[in-house]
Amino acid sequence: MVKVSVLYPNGEGKSFDMDYYCNKHVPMVAGLLGDSVKAATVEMGLAGGTPGSFAPYAGMGNLYFNSVEDFEDSFGPNAEKIMGDLPNFTNIEPLIQVSEVMI
Amino acid sequence: MVKVSVLYPNGEGKSFDMDYYCNKHVPMVAGLLGDSVKAATVEMGLAGGTPGSFAPYAGMGNLYFNSVEDFEDSFGPNAEKIMGDLPNFTNIEPLIQVSEVMI
Repeated sequence: MVKVSVLYPNGEGKSFDMDYYCNKHVPMVAGLLGDSVKAATVEMGLAGGTPGSFAPYAGMGNLYFNSVEDFEDSFGPNAEKIMGDLPNFTNIEPLIQVSEVMI
Repeated sequence: MVKVSVLYPNGEGKSFDMDYYCNKHVPMVAGLLGDSVKAATVEMGLAGGTPGSFAPYAGMGNLYFNSVEDFEDSFGPNAEKIMGDLPNFTNIEPLIQVSEVMI
């Protein structure tokens, strides 16, 4: 199983509309990518490793696929539409990581 | 539900023993923290957002708790032992994020 993480780095002047992200963006992406998406999860940053510290990421979205090919084949044709929705909920440029699920 | 992510940034000269991490470190941590841990997941970095690019994180470990208090109360007394195991599998200083699970 492959996990594609979209990480939105926190910082001064950064904004992230979690309501829009959960209720509009992620459902839109899941709809566009269709059956190749096996699961989707979203987390909101609360803190860093020490109490009271800043969360490194304002938000994290994760999509699960059976393979890297399934991700690339479904994301590629929809990339422009998906990336074009970002200004509707954030001014952050996300960091993307493709991972293999080990546990 | 609260997710504690332990992210190991990739980089030149960085090493990460995924076998030790999955088979020794994570089970040790789960054993020490006991019932407060509701789930544990591990991912290995494959790539960044563009084909052939470097994964931002060599490895990511995630622990799920019912609350931030459950994390702090169970992790605190075991922090020294857990952090002391890091040199056995990596020379990377991890980034920690505490998140609220939204989806």
